[in-house]
Amino acid sequence: MANYELYYWSNIQGRGEFVRLALEDAGADYVDVGRGPRGDDAVARGMKGGLGGTRPFGPPYLRHGKIVVAQTANVLAYLGPRLGLVPKGEPARLAAHQHQLTIADFVVEIHDTHHPEGPTLYYEDQKPSSRRRAAAFLAARLPLFMGYFEDVLEENGGRHIIGRSVSYVDLSLYQIALGLGYAFPRAFGRYQKKIPRLMALRDRIAERPGIAAYLASERRIPFNEDDLFRHYPELDK
Amino acid sequence: MANYELYYWSNIQGRGEFVRLALEDAGADYVDVGRGPRGDDAVARGMKGGLGGTRPFGPPYLRHGKIVVAQTANVLAYLGPRLGLVPKGEPARLAAHQHQLTIADFVVEIHDTHHPEGPTLYYEDQKPSSRRRAAAFLAARLPLFMGYFEDVLEENGGRHIIGRSVSYVDLSLYQIALGLGYAFPRAFGRYQKKIPRLMALRDRIAERPGIAAYLASERRIPFNEDDLFRHYPELDK
Repeated sequence: MANYELYYWSNIQGRGEFVRLALEDAGADYVDVGRGPRGDDAVARGMKGGLGGTRPFGPPYLRHGKIVVAQTANVLAYLGPRLGLVPKGEPARLAAHQHQLTIADFVVEIHDTHHPEGPTLYYEDQKPSSRRRAAAFLAARLPLFMGYFEDVLEENGGRHIIGRSVSYVDLSLYQIALGLGYAFPRAFGRYQKKIPRLMALRDRIAERPGIAAYLASERRIPFNEDDLFRHYPELDK
Repeated sequence: MANYELYYWSNIQGRGEFVRLALEDAGADYVDVGRGPRGDDAVARGMKGGLGGTRPFGPPYLRHGKIVVAQTANVLAYLGPRLGLVPKGEPARLAAHQHQLTIADFVVEIHDTHHPEGPTLYYEDQKPSSRRRAAAFLAARLPLFMGYFEDVLEENGGRHIIGRSVSYVDLSLYQIALGLGYAFPRAFGRYQKKIPRLMALRDRIAERPGIAAYLASERRIPFNEDDLFRHYPELDK
């Protein structure tokens, strides 16, 4: 049995991808349960309890021995020290987790560009408000979040968001930059000139052996329009 | 100088309230900086850095000696053991934090009932989509989140969400139940019959000495329509 079991939907990158990137970068011994023979049914079943610990509200969640832990940022805070993807010491770990939670807030706003009226309605049923939310997102929120991380990166020397080596936060920022480029090629293409350090970070992360091997494998799910980052040209002005 | 300095806006409960409730319940030695002579300017200034540690993206954030920590759930994870508001041991702390992060997700959805098109527009400029989002929230999302916590509470014996004593998660669920009752008196008034354990938890928390004294004090900011929980009758069907 693998050391770590990741439970997440098999057809999307979604929030699970932030965990997958950490496991892949570290070369961890893990299985992506939803993508294996037990499939998404096993992911859904685990949310009813029975794996141990308290019940997840939703995926991703991780099983490691007797520990079952849910919520993306919580999973990464748990894995970080075990995978060598966060500096030692409480101040650095609090800072890394703080940044991951800010990324989680940003992820909700990215998602809501195509679901402003909530997750219970289809995109097709909320297009006018999606256009308005995406416009406000691209004009104000994207620059606010990405500008913040560009500044934090600069203040820390430009190569890592925290400490002096790559952390799970850097891997997550890589995924954010890549996803924004997929979803908003026009608007993010224009904006990215303002965040040179984040774009260089994205390029460095892509070349890490674990990440490069993962991207070239069948394990990496392509971006798609059932996912968090969706390319709808009408939202990309 | 007080042991803890909380930095949050002076005119709203907002996300800062989850931290205030923990500090008040524990009778902690703290100052609410924004509500003191230095006011909201000090809250805004701290977000530019200079207090130590990495920079907060937004409030609430907490200063404790040399530690500066931001993101509501991260602040509570930091305070929990220090205030005796979380059980000992890694599994219980992971579970408590997991629940707090699910509450954070729920808080975004509560907020977005009156801001579906994002935080950069006024409510008055997004009323039609607010009506649709609020309707979907009350029909599907409120029962999903509150039903989940009711079940977790039941599975843990009915009195506490985690462990065998009151944790910061119980205090946050108290605030959620109270806020939903303020924002949606009609819809939540009907729904609350389905979550008897959460409603009993709400009533028990209100009687705790630290909480009762806080609620009776000037320190507790009344619910208001610049805040997270807003009572707009047109959204409460």
